[in-house]
Amino acid sequence: MYNTTNLDKLKEECGVIGIHAPGRGQLARLAYFGLHALQHRGQESAGIAVNKEGSITYYKEMGLVQEVFSDDVISRLEGDITVGHVRYSTTGESYVINAQPLVVRYKGGSIALAHNGNLINAGEIRDDLEDQGVIFQTSIDSEVIANLIARYNAFGIEKAIQKTMEQIRGSYALVITYGNKLIGLRDPNGLRPLCIGKIEGGYVLSSESCAFNVLNAEFVRDVAAGEMVIIEDGQIRSIQYAGGEKKALCSFEFVYFARPDSVLDGQSVYISRRNAGKMLAKEHPVDADVVIAVPDSGTVAAIGYAEESKIPFGEGLIKNRYVGRTFIQPDQKMRELSVRLKLNVLKENIQGKRVVLIDDSIVRGTTSGRIVEMLKNAGATEVHLRVCSPPVKYSCYFGIDTPNRKNLVGATHSIEEIRKMIGADSLGYLSIDGLLKSIDESGAGLCSACFSGDYPMEVPKTSNKYLFEKK
Amino acid sequence: MYNTTNLDKLKEECGVIGIHAPGRGQLARLAYFGLHALQHRGQESAGIAVNKEGSITYYKEMGLVQEVFSDDVISRLEGDITVGHVRYSTTGESYVINAQPLVVRYKGGSIALAHNGNLINAGEIRDDLEDQGVIFQTSIDSEVIANLIARYNAFGIEKAIQKTMEQIRGSYALVITYGNKLIGLRDPNGLRPLCIGKIEGGYVLSSESCAFNVLNAEFVRDVAAGEMVIIEDGQIRSIQYAGGEKKALCSFEFVYFARPDSVLDGQSVYISRRNAGKMLAKEHPVDADVVIAVPDSGTVAAIGYAEESKIPFGEGLIKNRYVGRTFIQPDQKMRELSVRLKLNVLKENIQGKRVVLIDDSIVRGTTSGRIVEMLKNAGATEVHLRVCSPPVKYSCYFGIDTPNRKNLVGATHSIEEIRKMIGADSLGYLSIDGLLKSIDESGAGLCSACFSGDYPMEVPKTSNKYLFEKK
Amino acid sequence: MYNTTNLDKLKEECGVIGIHAPGRGQLARLAYFGLHALQHRGQESAGIAVNKEGSITYYKEMGLVQEVFSDDVISRLEGDITVGHVRYSTTGESYVINAQPLVVRYKGGSIALAHNGNLINAGEIRDDLEDQGVIFQTSIDSEVIANLIARYNAFGIEKAIQKTMEQIRGSYALVITYGNKLIGLRDPNGLRPLCIGKIEGGYVLSSESCAFNVLNAEFVRDVAAGEMVIIEDGQIRSIQYAGGEKKALCSFEFVYFARPDSVLDGQSVYISRRNAGKMLAKEHPVDADVVIAVPDSGTVAAIGYAEESKIPFGEGLIKNRYVGRTFIQPDQKMRELSVRLKLNVLKENIQGKRVVLIDDSIVRGTTSGRIVEMLKNAGATEVHLRVCSPPVKYSCYFGIDTPNRKNLVGATHSIEEIRKMIGADSLGYLSIDGLLKSIDESGAGLCSACFSGDYPMEVPKTSNKYLFEKK
Amino acid sequence: MYNTTNLDKLKEECGVIGIHAPGRGQLARLAYFGLHALQHRGQESAGIAVNKEGSITYYKEMGLVQEVFSDDVISRLEGDITVGHVRYSTTGESYVINAQPLVVRYKGGSIALAHNGNLINAGEIRDDLEDQGVIFQTSIDSEVIANLIARYNAFGIEKAIQKTMEQIRGSYALVITYGNKLIGLRDPNGLRPLCIGKIEGGYVLSSESCAFNVLNAEFVRDVAAGEMVIIEDGQIRSIQYAGGEKKALCSFEFVYFARPDSVLDGQSVYISRRNAGKMLAKEHPVDADVVIAVPDSGTVAAIGYAEESKIPFGEGLIKNRYVGRTFIQPDQKMRELSVRLKLNVLKENIQGKRVVLIDDSIVRGTTSGRIVEMLKNAGATEVHLRVCSPPVKYSCYFGIDTPNRKNLVGATHSIEEIRKMIGADSLGYLSIDGLLKSIDESGAGLCSACFSGDYPMEVPKTSNKYLFEKK
Repeated sequence: MYNTTNLDKLKEECGVIGIHAPGRGQLARLAYFGLHALQHRGQESAGIAVNKEGSITYYKEMGLVQEVFSDDVISRLEGDITVGHVRYSTTGESYVINAQPLVVRYKGGSIALAHNGNLINAGEIRDDLEDQGVIFQTSIDSEVIANLIARYNAFGIEKAIQKTMEQIRGSYALVITYGNKLIGLRDPNGLRPLCIGKIEGGYVLSSESCAFNVLNAEFVRDVAAGEMVIIEDGQIRSIQYAGGEKKALCSFEFVYFARPDSVLDGQSVYISRRNAGKMLAKEHPVDADVVIAVPDSGTVAAIGYAEESKIPFGEGLIKNRYVGRTFIQPDQKMRELSVRLKLNVLKENIQGKRVVLIDDSIVRGTTSGRIVEMLKNAGATEVHLRVCSPPVKYSCYFGIDTPNRKNLVGATHSIEEIRKMIGADSLGYLSIDGLLKSIDESGAGLCSACFSGDYPMEVPKTSNKYLFEKK
Repeated sequence: MYNTTNLDKLKEECGVIGIHAPGRGQLARLAYFGLHALQHRGQESAGIAVNKEGSITYYKEMGLVQEVFSDDVISRLEGDITVGHVRYSTTGESYVINAQPLVVRYKGGSIALAHNGNLINAGEIRDDLEDQGVIFQTSIDSEVIANLIARYNAFGIEKAIQKTMEQIRGSYALVITYGNKLIGLRDPNGLRPLCIGKIEGGYVLSSESCAFNVLNAEFVRDVAAGEMVIIEDGQIRSIQYAGGEKKALCSFEFVYFARPDSVLDGQSVYISRRNAGKMLAKEHPVDADVVIAVPDSGTVAAIGYAEESKIPFGEGLIKNRYVGRTFIQPDQKMRELSVRLKLNVLKENIQGKRVVLIDDSIVRGTTSGRIVEMLKNAGATEVHLRVCSPPVKYSCYFGIDTPNRKNLVGATHSIEEIRKMIGADSLGYLSIDGLLKSIDESGAGLCSACFSGDYPMEVPKTSNKYLFEKK
Repeated sequence: MYNTTNLDKLKEECGVIGIHAPGRGQLARLAYFGLHALQHRGQESAGIAVNKEGSITYYKEMGLVQEVFSDDVISRLEGDITVGHVRYSTTGESYVINAQPLVVRYKGGSIALAHNGNLINAGEIRDDLEDQGVIFQTSIDSEVIANLIARYNAFGIEKAIQKTMEQIRGSYALVITYGNKLIGLRDPNGLRPLCIGKIEGGYVLSSESCAFNVLNAEFVRDVAAGEMVIIEDGQIRSIQYAGGEKKALCSFEFVYFARPDSVLDGQSVYISRRNAGKMLAKEHPVDADVVIAVPDSGTVAAIGYAEESKIPFGEGLIKNRYVGRTFIQPDQKMRELSVRLKLNVLKENIQGKRVVLIDDSIVRGTTSGRIVEMLKNAGATEVHLRVCSPPVKYSCYFGIDTPNRKNLVGATHSIEEIRKMIGADSLGYLSIDGLLKSIDESGAGLCSACFSGDYPMEVPKTSNKYLFEKK
Repeated sequence: MYNTTNLDKLKEECGVIGIHAPGRGQLARLAYFGLHALQHRGQESAGIAVNKEGSITYYKEMGLVQEVFSDDVISRLEGDITVGHVRYSTTGESYVINAQPLVVRYKGGSIALAHNGNLINAGEIRDDLEDQGVIFQTSIDSEVIANLIARYNAFGIEKAIQKTMEQIRGSYALVITYGNKLIGLRDPNGLRPLCIGKIEGGYVLSSESCAFNVLNAEFVRDVAAGEMVIIEDGQIRSIQYAGGEKKALCSFEFVYFARPDSVLDGQSVYISRRNAGKMLAKEHPVDADVVIAVPDSGTVAAIGYAEESKIPFGEGLIKNRYVGRTFIQPDQKMRELSVRLKLNVLKENIQGKRVVLIDDSIVRGTTSGRIVEMLKNAGATEVHLRVCSPPVKYSCYFGIDTPNRKNLVGATHSIEEIRKMIGADSLGYLSIDGLLKSIDESGAGLCSACFSGDYPMEVPKTSNKYLFEKK
């Protein structure tokens, strides 16, 4: 089969959810619908674990949420607390063994963990643990975390988690259930988002607030960086186990990953994208006839660009809503099919026009080139590409799947070289400062390391997510 | 499972495609990709038949195009001519036996037919044929057509088809293969669309021009109402077997069914929708802060409305792109889940604002009511619903699945009653005249019977698509 | 995949069942379990139709009975009369369209037919019907029968069926439901079996009596050759619509097809097989140490041979009970895997022994050769092959899938040549007379045409089951 | 679905295979076919791991071997050493996480283990390990073994395994791959079988010799009790790491589990079963007309009984070869369907006869009662049940799934009570001594604990296989 996944976007690694609502019943069902709202954060595998008086059962499988769970499976997952997870799709090392939540039994009992993020010292800890005779069955960080928690068992679960957090470095939004508790944690830099909602009969933790609507939940607040929240007996307790580190919420969540209807650390993703579009219009104005977006991720910014520039917004590319993740092999003569299957030019809005094309980001640049070609073939007299984020130049170590630097066109080519490669008449990237200010007026509290190389913590010289694959 | 199909939209019944390109090879593969572009016209079943020197093989199954066909199946479908079909999804009488193309063997050889439309005298013809001892295995009109063609076999295929067309009344875009021919027909009123494209090595027939892009095909022209085109030996011949009837292309194709990037009988669907939005702004102006659309079908018109009214366009409802066709049963407390699973309010654009909400049409009104409620809950101070088509008051007999008149809110309630039911602060429908002029300046050549009751031909007192189900 | 179906056996084409028990409910469920007992008669597709007050619904699909039907599907098939069918598996022209029962609507209403057998004049009738403009959608004889019944509709269903039977020639056990009737028919020669059982609340028709046990049914009697039984209002009526033709029940049913626990026309299949083994011992005695069978079909006869010859019976070949119908491709070095996957030599009973190997029949001879080789490799000093049926020399026209005569080793080679080819030390076939007498002492009432060429009716010069495939 | 698994038989827990043949290629393919021959030892899940220069990849899933593996999956499993496993089916705690081989990464590298057997001190070791902070993800013993090996890593793999074996008690046939080695072990009592074969290009380890035929392998020898064999560089080395313990090969392997064409520790399973039948005839003679078996497991013994008693052997019960593992729910009136779906009485051999019915064992007695009833209903004048093993009175701790003692009819009822319950005219069990002598003339070297309670090692007071399920 022919994989149609857009290779020209960065990929988020996960979405997590947790619900604590003992009296309510059917929590796995709620988690199922909540995971639907987080599906954009991972399409490779899905899993739900339920905790009934400390005893944990679970189901996880490769596939989309709706493919993985049947009514029958959901009905058999009974409990008072639930933890769910979606994981993103790669072609490489993705096995059901690596699906989450990870459920393990240890001295303290049973525990289920769902993790979004990436530990940069997981390899070292793993080596240490292996030196002590520990075996590993998966290649996910959660297995490292579970091992550490087990080792600190004597301290009690909360202290054990804290001591574990002291040892690990990197990014994480973690949702854990153990005993009668649902526990949420966010790393000291707050790199990955996690928020709290109030639901009938209890509380919800979710990577993004967009999951609250479907659950009829009310937004309460974000989990703070370095905070552990413990939900138990209908109450939320909070332990600020770390503090003082630089706040550094991933700015790419705003650029591409998060759903526009989510609010992360008080900032609406939608608003930030429209701001980015406006800012882009100020930084890279151009004389043109129409502003169009690469749908769907560029649409909000395109509206902002149009608003600021006074150039009318129009739809120039129509997306086929029925395009799945794989196809049969195309015929030799069907060049560049993956783009044309998904996008079709709306000639009426393009022909004879000078077009401003808004995309959220450029990773490799290949798709952008094909789209510019399609627009020119459809009669665009000029195509001015405007990108709502700065050039991606550095690898992410915190949970985003960035290609090797040599494949990041922003790292290897000048802007002019990229423009030529893509065939655009002009090319403008949003500045780092512009991006950060579009999210927060002060521009503070955000990680922009993939653009600037300015990491919020020391990163290893080399690292990649296959580090722990079996050898 | 819980069916999430939007019950509040009319449903198209089918999409057809045909390719004649003997030297090229792998035509089933082309048809597969072409059917992807027509998938919006039917999601129930898909089928492809190939004709190799008069011998026809085929494969059809329930499901989406990409679910039905594997590389293996496509590879085994070899031929010089191919016919493909997608059928829409209902919960009722949908069996694989009713999937198309219909392939039959008769005195003249083998024939494959793919039909979009509905015959209003199929019942009578069927009765006549049954009187003569004919048996029926399906409940599709194509079986009636195939029987008639077989009866006229002595006249040769082209004449046999003509004589058949003389007998049938109703709507059809038909694609047929027989011998070394690919034949396309459109009913005398041109109710359903069909167009011709030029492809490397041959020709394509398609319900909509949007399929041409993916096939690298060039638009040639529409098949005319009452025209039969015969593609053979690399040539297109035309027989105008009927004429003089009132041209009556379905106006709902422009309102909702067709893809915006298609051009039907010379009119861009996108342009007509934007025109409709502008016209709507003229007919039903309102003082408001933001224009939003019910995505995706209302988006183009909303842009038009904003342009005309000078009220800014914004995104107010975010669609979940991962919502499939079925779900597990929700929990009792998850009210109105099907709407909330698909749509989420973007509070930032709604809160404290007077909102103009653009929808393409209202059938039952239930979904509209839920959306208005969601917007009000999110803080909209006013919600003014504007609908880009007139009230749907009459059943369609020509291939659109309209509910019984008693379920058409436009047929049973006054506009003011509908407004109250939906809870909008004001409600404005586009006039019939406005709709027709948004499509064609003269307003001519279109069927608007579902709005006006003015059918292009005499229709039976009662009719429904289950007429031929086995009893 | 690697097809492991035993190519060296003749194949039955179908099994049929019908139940009439209006008050009882859940008839599809009964049919499902009954079809399990007939599964050996066909593994390609399975189908069940139910008749509720003349309205017929059905479900049929490719696969084994237990693969085709789920509890859900069975639950939705409600009716007072049911008709079921299993069809055998070939690699060639097997589509779901050819699965049975065939359900059609005609002037008289709806009718469902399940057919075991083969019509030798179906082609001619089909040609006639095509001359009259009839179309055909399948390549099964049942469609011809349904067309004829429809044409005679004016005569009422019973007379229409009779008139149809007057026109068709060949073999059939037919089970039909229409209106409030369940109708069973057997061709004038009685070539294919059909019997009647009494069940709580009604009656059952079945190809073989072995289905009665699972249904708690009591054997009533066989349907006679040329008889139509009509079950209605809890009564059985009988119409002897034909008579005087030579009774000719297929003798291969006794040799291989039927289950040993069935009784056909008063004769136990088990007894006939044991008799055949005894007869074989008389006709082809040999001095040996052990009698073994090719399991499972040769086992009963081997016991008979041992009994008569006083040579001890032993198990010499162990069958793997978990071998399915398909496998992945074996490695180049795994020679003759299909035999070794299924059968393993039990060295203890073979080594150093003179072995009598009993097989039910030889079609191509390839498998026999491999088995003999395996036995010799395991240390058999002599292998004497004894076959419980005469050489198969002629094609069957009555529902058995015989290969082309040129592939029938019995038609093209002398017995001595076959012996050499197979590598046996001696080879003995049961005589035709011996076979017939093993079934019925008088040797009368049986068809032995595949051995003798003496067909019970005139047969066409050429015929094959793909005659009606679409061209 | 209605589970048709025979609840009245003890269940084996696993089958293992290992192949070391570096030059040959396609080892996973060989393992696949080999596992087919071991399928009777476990139908719940199947898995294959391949080792390519120390790097291990694997695939395991719920289902039969042919359901789990496709050609595509097998093709992607490349390596020079392979380990395969089949696990038996229960309804309870069977998840894919518990499927084998277990593949883990530890300090020493990667290792794959396949285990047949049961450790009686796994709970204690697990507790110890948990005290040290170890986490467990599965409920299989292999995870305990892998943890121990990892802890002894500093000693090198062979010594690490030895030290692990010194700690564990219970039964095991283990196949392990690590580095360039394939390692096989058998517990010090030799409770579970394991043998060595020579294959083109290398060696095979298998639970039973019946797998050698399909692989064209030649039997070399059994692995000895307490022996570790290391296959490396085309050589087999042996380390006798334990000795002196009482040899105690499971006698139930001969009664029921093993395939009759296997030879375990020098004894043919087939011969032992025939001997058991003969012995049974001596111990419990009876005046009767026919000896029949409960197929298939009682057949060999029935032949032996007939031989010794001179009462003719006949087939009295016909097995439906198409009965799968699950069914839809039967109708209320279909009493005792599970037996009747599988077995049908052959009236001809039963009616008016005094029947000796041979079964391999009785666990609960329910099925036996139904069979006796069926025979009586079919006209048997007397039914004398003879069982080829002693009453099962004690739980097995060594890898056989015995029900709780209170469900073992042999533990709770006298023989006369069982006879009455079953409705047989007489009932005779083979004596323990008789069983042991039927396997080995000396009666030595076998475990008969489930009959005698005389365990080859001290067993815990309570133990069950769900001990390690998550709580």
